[in-house]
Amino acid sequence: MPEIRFDIVSGGFAVIAAERAKRPSDWESAQRSRKDIPSSDARCPFCPGNEKLTPPEVKAVRGESLPDEPGWTIRVFPNKFPALVRPEDLPGEEGEKSALQGQAPEDLHTAMYWRIPGIGAHEVVVESTLHNATLGSYAPEYLAGVLEVLKERALLLYDRRETRYVQVFKNHGERGGASLSHPHFQVIGLPVLPSAVVSEGLRQREYESRAGRCLFCDMVERELEKDVRVVGKSAEFVVLSPFASGYSFEALIVPRKHLGSFAEAGVEDNRALAQALVDLFRRYEALFPSLPYNMVFHGIPETARQRRNWPYHAHIHVYPRLNAEAGLELGTGVHINPSPPELATKQLLSALTD
Amino acid sequence: MPEIRFDIVSGGFAVIAAERAKRPSDWESAQRSRKDIPSSDARCPFCPGNEKLTPPEVKAVRGESLPDEPGWTIRVFPNKFPALVRPEDLPGEEGEKSALQGQAPEDLHTAMYWRIPGIGAHEVVVESTLHNATLGSYAPEYLAGVLEVLKERALLLYDRRETRYVQVFKNHGERGGASLSHPHFQVIGLPVLPSAVVSEGLRQREYESRAGRCLFCDMVERELEKDVRVVGKSAEFVVLSPFASGYSFEALIVPRKHLGSFAEAGVEDNRALAQALVDLFRRYEALFPSLPYNMVFHGIPETARQRRNWPYHAHIHVYPRLNAEAGLELGTGVHINPSPPELATKQLLSALTD
Repeated sequence: MPEIRFDIVSGGFAVIAAERAKRPSDWESAQRSRKDIPSSDARCPFCPGNEKLTPPEVKAVRGESLPDEPGWTIRVFPNKFPALVRPEDLPGEEGEKSALQGQAPEDLHTAMYWRIPGIGAHEVVVESTLHNATLGSYAPEYLAGVLEVLKERALLLYDRRETRYVQVFKNHGERGGASLSHPHFQVIGLPVLPSAVVSEGLRQREYESRAGRCLFCDMVERELEKDVRVVGKSAEFVVLSPFASGYSFEALIVPRKHLGSFAEAGVEDNRALAQALVDLFRRYEALFPSLPYNMVFHGIPETARQRRNWPYHAHIHVYPRLNAEAGLELGTGVHINPSPPELATKQLLSALTD
Repeated sequence: MPEIRFDIVSGGFAVIAAERAKRPSDWESAQRSRKDIPSSDARCPFCPGNEKLTPPEVKAVRGESLPDEPGWTIRVFPNKFPALVRPEDLPGEEGEKSALQGQAPEDLHTAMYWRIPGIGAHEVVVESTLHNATLGSYAPEYLAGVLEVLKERALLLYDRRETRYVQVFKNHGERGGASLSHPHFQVIGLPVLPSAVVSEGLRQREYESRAGRCLFCDMVERELEKDVRVVGKSAEFVVLSPFASGYSFEALIVPRKHLGSFAEAGVEDNRALAQALVDLFRRYEALFPSLPYNMVFHGIPETARQRRNWPYHAHIHVYPRLNAEAGLELGTGVHINPSPPELATKQLLSALTD
């Protein structure tokens, strides 16, 4: 029997409808094995030896070797097809002006056609030399190093005066919107604060002002008590199947201490986070050898930290792309999810014997 | 040079980044010709002769023939894999109770785990006997008849006491989330008013209270003046490429008179709307022989009409699914759109010589 669940984080709803899982065909592509993908591909611009196929690197973890040569383990460079360009690539005056335009104008007629230059940053973080690496294949210490690089890039982008918000994310698999299969993260610096981010911040503030406590701190405590949607826990992190998951096998990774943003994460936090991620993805990969997904990091924007009274609690969303978003989702924001989160939790827990 | 545009309707942003169109591979599947699809398919449950493969029909446009037999031109039945079930299929008490639960509870601890039974309706409207029909292939008078059926179904669902919102939509193509290729609409009656719908209503109210005029009436007037994003116009309807389109080749269809909902549309309105749709889709199909897309009807919910002071103006969104939504979209609500709307308009206008 399907259920509608209210999502206290987004203010939206999810329809939990296990019956939908009986529909033919949807999951086949996720079952295709990743074994067919080789560990290196001569045509892949992210593979070692092909550094000249990407823009020059802006950061790398490497030994004695030269920039834009093999010898690295993690390599960062601007996206070759960027969604946003750096202000230094603009004529001086336009770059100056646009740094002041992060907010929609008050005047309605101006707002209807408000536009600003698309300045910002769009970086690619190639996290491994292996073409077919997955999050579940890493040693936690290795992934912790990748998280350190992501944190460093995010902080650098926040230091630029045009940045209002930095989104760290990962697209994996064709249905996850990844145009290249070599594993990588992306870091985008936006010159506007997206309304979805503001809205998440405001909802957390409202919750705290009414409940006298942080929404995520409360949720973690109650989920650990109930223990029907807990996919993983350590002293530092909890991994949950969210109560109102809109996506099949969705996951939410929450630090147990009240961390405002992953930009505040210390080396120990990143080590614990890496352990939580590797554990979760080993389970995912045991169930779905080629799971397509998106992973997004949410934290209080550094630019909002001083100016806004948000009790923000950092977290990571993982959205597996096993089902298509279609008319209902686009028309109402209501997602149809064929996998009850409690069942997904059980499947993930039994996917590996610890 | 990419641009960021503020969308006054949703309050969100779109990145208009033509450079992204140069990325390899994304559009290939849209170019696959629909010519390969036959006009009937013996295995298709929506084709004439296979009526027994669907739940019994609840409505059909047919001549002398019997229900659930061939002889129809339009046929409506409950979805075999419904997202929501009818209250009459529930044990009496639960069905009663749930009809009163369309709003999230005030108490926060209750809200965090609020759930109600997934009652409502999920109907399929098979719009043609032809397995490979498309919106661009219909005679406008024929499509007007389909629109009449959609209106009738929406009004019937609003008459049920559990209904808070009815979404009429169409999924087309695999990337549009259609699990079956035979052309059909869907009508879903939800027992909750989705926050995305409320938010669109509130934004329109805010606009009107500040500008003294309806947002859509204003927009239509200004777009006709500027005439750089007008894909079609008649005395009754305007078809636009929205200024802040988040999707490549996105379209917005707006009645020129201030119609609150398509439930108010008269026979003449539906005839004019059908003409506008056929014209738009003939252009789409000339450019993209197998365009995957979602189409959603937005209007003031009948249940909100009396109780809320919304100056709602009905409209239809068409979201072509040429590009994947990925981490940035899911994390921030900010879409990357590789097709500037003004260029998309030109391409649509020159796709057919009138």
